[in-house]
Amino acid sequence: MITGKNYIGEELSATGNVTYKTIDPEANSENEFTFYEATKEEVNQAAEKASEAFEVYKIKSSKEKAEFLEAIASEIEALGEELTNIYSKESALPEGRAKGECARTSSQLRSFSEMLKEGSWVETIISKAEGKPDIRRMLTPLGPIAVFGASNFPFAFSTAGGDTASALAAGCSVIVKSHPLHAGTGEMVSRAILKAAKKTGMPDGVFSNLNSSGIEVGQWLVKHPKIKAVGFTGSIKAGTALCKLAAERKEPIPVYAEMGSVNPVVILPSALKNKAEEWAEKYAASITAGTGQFCTNPGLILGIKGEGFDRFIKVLGESVEKIDPTCMLHPNIKKQFETSVSELLSQKGFTKVGASSKKIKKNYAHQQVVAVDGEVFLKNKIFHKEVFGPFSVVVKCHDKKQLTEIIRNLEGQLTGTILNSEEKELQDFAETIDALKSRVGRIIFNGVPTGVEVCAAMTHGGPFPATSDSKFTSVGLTAVKRWVRPVSYQDWPNSILPKELKNENPLGILRNINGKITKDGL
Amino acid sequence: MITGKNYIGEELSATGNVTYKTIDPEANSENEFTFYEATKEEVNQAAEKASEAFEVYKIKSSKEKAEFLEAIASEIEALGEELTNIYSKESALPEGRAKGECARTSSQLRSFSEMLKEGSWVETIISKAEGKPDIRRMLTPLGPIAVFGASNFPFAFSTAGGDTASALAAGCSVIVKSHPLHAGTGEMVSRAILKAAKKTGMPDGVFSNLNSSGIEVGQWLVKHPKIKAVGFTGSIKAGTALCKLAAERKEPIPVYAEMGSVNPVVILPSALKNKAEEWAEKYAASITAGTGQFCTNPGLILGIKGEGFDRFIKVLGESVEKIDPTCMLHPNIKKQFETSVSELLSQKGFTKVGASSKKIKKNYAHQQVVAVDGEVFLKNKIFHKEVFGPFSVVVKCHDKKQLTEIIRNLEGQLTGTILNSEEKELQDFAETIDALKSRVGRIIFNGVPTGVEVCAAMTHGGPFPATSDSKFTSVGLTAVKRWVRPVSYQDWPNSILPKELKNENPLGILRNINGKITKDGL
Repeated sequence: MITGKNYIGEELSATGNVTYKTIDPEANSENEFTFYEATKEEVNQAAEKASEAFEVYKIKSSKEKAEFLEAIASEIEALGEELTNIYSKESALPEGRAKGECARTSSQLRSFSEMLKEGSWVETIISKAEGKPDIRRMLTPLGPIAVFGASNFPFAFSTAGGDTASALAAGCSVIVKSHPLHAGTGEMVSRAILKAAKKTGMPDGVFSNLNSSGIEVGQWLVKHPKIKAVGFTGSIKAGTALCKLAAERKEPIPVYAEMGSVNPVVILPSALKNKAEEWAEKYAASITAGTGQFCTNPGLILGIKGEGFDRFIKVLGESVEKIDPTCMLHPNIKKQFETSVSELLSQKGFTKVGASSKKIKKNYAHQQVVAVDGEVFLKNKIFHKEVFGPFSVVVKCHDKKQLTEIIRNLEGQLTGTILNSEEKELQDFAETIDALKSRVGRIIFNGVPTGVEVCAAMTHGGPFPATSDSKFTSVGLTAVKRWVRPVSYQDWPNSILPKELKNENPLGILRNINGKITKDGL
Repeated sequence: MITGKNYIGEELSATGNVTYKTIDPEANSENEFTFYEATKEEVNQAAEKASEAFEVYKIKSSKEKAEFLEAIASEIEALGEELTNIYSKESALPEGRAKGECARTSSQLRSFSEMLKEGSWVETIISKAEGKPDIRRMLTPLGPIAVFGASNFPFAFSTAGGDTASALAAGCSVIVKSHPLHAGTGEMVSRAILKAAKKTGMPDGVFSNLNSSGIEVGQWLVKHPKIKAVGFTGSIKAGTALCKLAAERKEPIPVYAEMGSVNPVVILPSALKNKAEEWAEKYAASITAGTGQFCTNPGLILGIKGEGFDRFIKVLGESVEKIDPTCMLHPNIKKQFETSVSELLSQKGFTKVGASSKKIKKNYAHQQVVAVDGEVFLKNKIFHKEVFGPFSVVVKCHDKKQLTEIIRNLEGQLTGTILNSEEKELQDFAETIDALKSRVGRIIFNGVPTGVEVCAAMTHGGPFPATSDSKFTSVGLTAVKRWVRPVSYQDWPNSILPKELKNENPLGILRNINGKITKDGL
């Protein structure tokens, strides 16, 4: 079922000599399949095909594109346990997570499909006034997109994940640089996409999947003149390198990189007074969920010193110790986790809050939480860094002023959380809350940051370095805006205007006509 | 009335030693005022002030911000001839243009003010479902913005132009790097903005104006950590240099650079058959309007060889010769025009279409049009380059295929124009039109590209190098989107939600609630 080859559009290709295998982290052994790294020639072929396919795909109707997305969802679902088994064998993520993430992926595809069928997402604006030119504006797709999947979400942020779904919805063709940790999962999902493309009459080249275990395939893709934008989920190092590469092109292109976050959590005094233990238990669970391998993992917990915070820290430590360790995504990720933790633990000025000391299998991670004083945290930027895995830093702030100062000194984040149990306290901490809000893309009240709801109102993005462009989200319907640009038609004859702009509004979409939002025709 | 000093917020400052003067191009003499180049210290002061002011300004209500913008418009208008006189003395642009551009500037400010009062521009989305988190999203300002004014629009694309108006509307503070060609105009307009800020209770530092005749002030601004985005109108060279600088920052920031265009015009056979002479006359006027110093100046006219195109070319040449030459913006711009024209005229394979040979004053420009064959144009990229001034290249294409090929080989453009007089012909040229559409931000039918209507549906932007980011426009209401990012509030208490997101919808704005566009509360 797994060939290990690249998909250049519908065509299987394996002309290169470099091969690699994926790892089953639970068994700590290689999986059986051999993958063929894409060659430069194969990258070029995929880009040329994507460019040709784009010209055909972009003019397919919204309804046709919607059917394509729905067909992808169905094809993925039809793979059932065959797919979730390989997913688990390439990630050590358990069956429940596999099924949940698979369902999230299909439902994501279906929500973009619904968006297309409804049609108003193209943001039509019509300005028409006596004696002035008739200007009509709508969003139009950019061109072929390169998508770099994430290690930690083999379904939802990879081959047919949010970037691919939103780019296909926008009307762009897509080339996925397959994530080397789950290349088999990637191949199976790719085949589902290609089957859906064939069934719904989409052009060959609308989707390609390229295997890659090194960095060259990604670099060739980002530098290829036919590629018009890039979606990426991964590390700051890799994300910023791709941004730099894209900026140096003769024609620079945007890279939408989601690069992680420590997701600061602020426990206000009222929450410490009334709910210290409850939050401590919830946070122990959030820190260790998915072996801490979420971009929204709470890596930083801030509170003001005192009896309440001491109680919180005590219970957090105890709860963290009780939880059974789980397996990481890959031996290299485990190694990286250990390196990051060691670097942190070699710093001065921290105390241990709690750590698992249970006997663990190879590739499992011992979760751990440490605490530092506000002064230490402010001075030592190493404590600000994301540790990818089940690790968190608790910061004991001297007072409200220091708490606010610390937040102001944080880099950009995907999320920030406020825990509170007396509403009147929120006014006292207005400045602190405002400081947190200005550092994040999503601000959560009395919850945990893990769990990113797929909905129209979601922002999964934030100021640099959480993402490379805080104006966009990679989750939710507005993720489509990364792959489109506005075009205005001036005095264009109705007969050849796109349907979205025609007088009679044949698609029945909501349009802004001279400031009025309406489904009326002109 | 002109002090020549920098405005660091409300404070006049001139601590540096470098001074310069502006030029009256008509008189070919220096204007009387001396301007003090901002120092690095002054740049830092302005950035710090802008950052502090931002914290106060961003939470002003939309109504308060709207009053500020309206007050700016009124203060500018109140300056009357005093302002338009200095404008003309620093640009050689005639009185009519001065008044027209001044009116455009005020009306632009007022349209953003209307947008703020209406309030729906923040794009509220509310996703609320049983058993799911309550997510509410709105747009929020980025922070202090640096604006680089344009040489060719001392009002509408400079100190209080579209970039400043849209950034202030977004809730951002603004620092203008004053354009050295019209520093006096810039100072007067700055004073009007500051007077309006004072009258409407806006914080000191919401606006600053820095004099600069070199490149350092701009570089310091773009590199300053408190600056969060940049608006620029000017040359490809300067624009791409700023983009590079911004990308190399520790925290990279977006630069929205509008960098010019040759604005290709395609005359289809029907238009040549029926209206060759009429279009020739209109285009002679468009090429020479404002001494050709518009970013939408038609620098490239494409048609298919034949009797009709010959007639067009003949009348275009005759008309261009008849028009009286006008003065350019500055001796250096005249020099640059001459250099660019010489470079073009030193190429092989062109024929002269028409040129003014009238006796001209110093700093005036002789308009000129040349023609080349399609093959020559395809091979020699020098003919693709924008000449800033009254100069155009006519390309005689062999056939439809070559015409389409040429369009596909063009770089990104602000506009593209189709001239046609028989609707059925449009189907025959569908591929050509589609190729043009994919290269531009605005596509015009039977018109001239000069004249950029300020309206909600306008796109004044386009694929690189027309602009650095084709997803945005610098003219029209959606220009505000460059200065904002989405923030999502999860399970936030109604009492401290921003008004735009509260259950009861106190602002009465249009919101997307679970996919329904409504003014209803929750």
